[in-house]
Amino acid sequence: MRTQVGIVGAGPPGLMLAHLLRREGVDAVVLEARDRSYVEGRIRTGVLEQGTVDLLKTLGLGERMERLGLLHHAIEVGYEKQRFRIDMTALTGKSVMVYGQHEVVTDLIAGAEAAGIPILFGVEDVALEGIAGPSPTIRFRRGGVGEELHCDYIAGCDGFHGISRAAVPDGVLTTYKREYPFSWLGILAEAAPSLDELLYMHSDCGFALFSMRSPTVTRLYLQCDRTENLAEWPDERVWEELHRRFESMDGWMPKAGPVLQKSITAMRSFVTAPMQFGRLFLAGDAAHIVPPTRAKGMNLAIADVKVLATCLSAAIREGKASALDCYSEVCLRRIWSAQRFSWWMTSMLHNSLEDSAFDRRRQIAELEYVTHSVAAATSLAENYVGLPIENPF
Amino acid sequence: MRTQVGIVGAGPPGLMLAHLLRREGVDAVVLEARDRSYVEGRIRTGVLEQGTVDLLKTLGLGERMERLGLLHHAIEVGYEKQRFRIDMTALTGKSVMVYGQHEVVTDLIAGAEAAGIPILFGVEDVALEGIAGPSPTIRFRRGGVGEELHCDYIAGCDGFHGISRAAVPDGVLTTYKREYPFSWLGILAEAAPSLDELLYMHSDCGFALFSMRSPTVTRLYLQCDRTENLAEWPDERVWEELHRRFESMDGWMPKAGPVLQKSITAMRSFVTAPMQFGRLFLAGDAAHIVPPTRAKGMNLAIADVKVLATCLSAAIREGKASALDCYSEVCLRRIWSAQRFSWWMTSMLHNSLEDSAFDRRRQIAELEYVTHSVAAATSLAENYVGLPIENPF
Repeated sequence: MRTQVGIVGAGPPGLMLAHLLRREGVDAVVLEARDRSYVEGRIRTGVLEQGTVDLLKTLGLGERMERLGLLHHAIEVGYEKQRFRIDMTALTGKSVMVYGQHEVVTDLIAGAEAAGIPILFGVEDVALEGIAGPSPTIRFRRGGVGEELHCDYIAGCDGFHGISRAAVPDGVLTTYKREYPFSWLGILAEAAPSLDELLYMHSDCGFALFSMRSPTVTRLYLQCDRTENLAEWPDERVWEELHRRFESMDGWMPKAGPVLQKSITAMRSFVTAPMQFGRLFLAGDAAHIVPPTRAKGMNLAIADVKVLATCLSAAIREGKASALDCYSEVCLRRIWSAQRFSWWMTSMLHNSLEDSAFDRRRQIAELEYVTHSVAAATSLAENYVGLPIENPF
Repeated sequence: MRTQVGIVGAGPPGLMLAHLLRREGVDAVVLEARDRSYVEGRIRTGVLEQGTVDLLKTLGLGERMERLGLLHHAIEVGYEKQRFRIDMTALTGKSVMVYGQHEVVTDLIAGAEAAGIPILFGVEDVALEGIAGPSPTIRFRRGGVGEELHCDYIAGCDGFHGISRAAVPDGVLTTYKREYPFSWLGILAEAAPSLDELLYMHSDCGFALFSMRSPTVTRLYLQCDRTENLAEWPDERVWEELHRRFESMDGWMPKAGPVLQKSITAMRSFVTAPMQFGRLFLAGDAAHIVPPTRAKGMNLAIADVKVLATCLSAAIREGKASALDCYSEVCLRRIWSAQRFSWWMTSMLHNSLEDSAFDRRRQIAELEYVTHSVAAATSLAENYVGLPIENPF
């Protein structure tokens, strides 16, 4: 089999890249180790930046999102039992869309099907070969039979644990890491969201986030210790702790309901540089991880492939192979900007045992500043809704 | 001897408080352990916020400052061999004045003399008595003779090492501290400043600051290790290191010249809360220290006594003793805001051995953001020129 761009991974970046390349008249094949229903059901982040929303609409894939997604113009930030509203649309003219990542994947797959973009689900033993040379190949097995996909370029969109980054020879990539000393315990609860906006709550007992998935499902997170596990958190303890953290002067509380799902997510930052080796280009979680504080992961992945599609199209259709040289640099600027923002927001909202009494007062001063200065609130808002995606040329 | 407000310390806050009280018709006496020439020659910080400049003008004490001070409308921030200008006046409508603290002190003393405000220099063995009760007294010796100053209230404006804070009984004050893992080595050089604005320079070798004291004197600082001492820094080493850190793509360098003075300053943050006990009120360095990164120390001290003068005047002239209750709270809001800002600027610009490779890249991302986003630059600028001083009532 042959294609111009072989894409490993049918998550948001892989699927989006295939759509963007198709629009440019470039052929691509998407390979995915899991089956379709698994991919469409995989619950992840759920806040789309304005740029991501616009891109989905431009590609004609926004119909379901516009119908089911919840458009948010503001967020709330709480501390010392008070809540403050940061009106992102008033400050930046932009907004975000609460719409689950699995819904985006579902829309992208349906769109690919309609457009005749080939996605091979359930492939096994995927391996990359010849990525340093001019004719890279993806080997894999399908239904027990070995196959080869010969490509001009390969896009590694297979996530943090995928095979793409691992295929790069040792010593080529520099990695940057930060592990935060806490995790997030998240629950999905069958309860109508009792607030229209997301609430990021700082408290002496630790951070908590009120969010929602739909008009009937509330999404809640609470900071927990890095070493804790779910067995230590029966539902009653979760609700009790949430109520303690969300305690506010106006008496607001998230509405409780049956817990549909419960999970613990480690908080970490990770960056690989460069995001390229030979004819292999890494995008999304395969190259970088941000802590979930602002749910930037999928948006960064989409921004990566928007740049990559432009570069690949110039290389393939116009013969400008050098167009690909800037891919990594352009993406890394945005990625570091997002890492900075996620680090800042995480540091401002969480308690850490490493913090001194001075640090805790400084944190409150930061929260006071960001909720009372137009410049500081604008700075938060412009990052929250997403800085513009740079055009590589 | 009797007065309404006994002021300990003839630094900027003590002297300014005496002037402000005089304007309100409240009597005060200032006591100072050093002699006048020492106080007028004590070199400290030198960047006045807009609010400090305005206050000096309002009191009719701005004539010399307006003649000799250097009005600055912008600062420069450098990293990765590039320099970026942050136009504070364009972003906030305000500016700062480069004018040495000892010049301010000189003007305040001359003004006090002209107005007949009593300042007793060279007093010894100063001790506070009865501060918990209604009739506090300052005991001291002058020319070998013991004296007493009976007051309604006492203002402790005698700096970090002064006797005022130490006079508060144990257990009353909470202190918050942060020691930074580096110091500043500062030099005064006889050389015309080769740049019109201050330049805050991040480099792989550590932070450096280009500043000036007058049209013929350059002020330079470089980050050094906490454990280093001046003997390890002969002039040649200082210039060599400065040249390494200021190396820029456009070839700019601070002009060298004979070194007039050289010193090492520890970097620390310190806050006392509350700033009051009984009839004793702490102001300035007696209550808080900020790292010198933005030279906020004197400005915070002036802001403290502006609030204190309003509160004391209400208590003494209008009999509203409760007016003093808010002093500490109002000041601490501003102080924590300044601590936050100084911490942020310090963290952004300095290298620390504690930093990981991730932290260093995040730092560059912060510098890129603050020099390229209007909101972020405005946020820096509004803090740099000084947030408005809150009216306590």
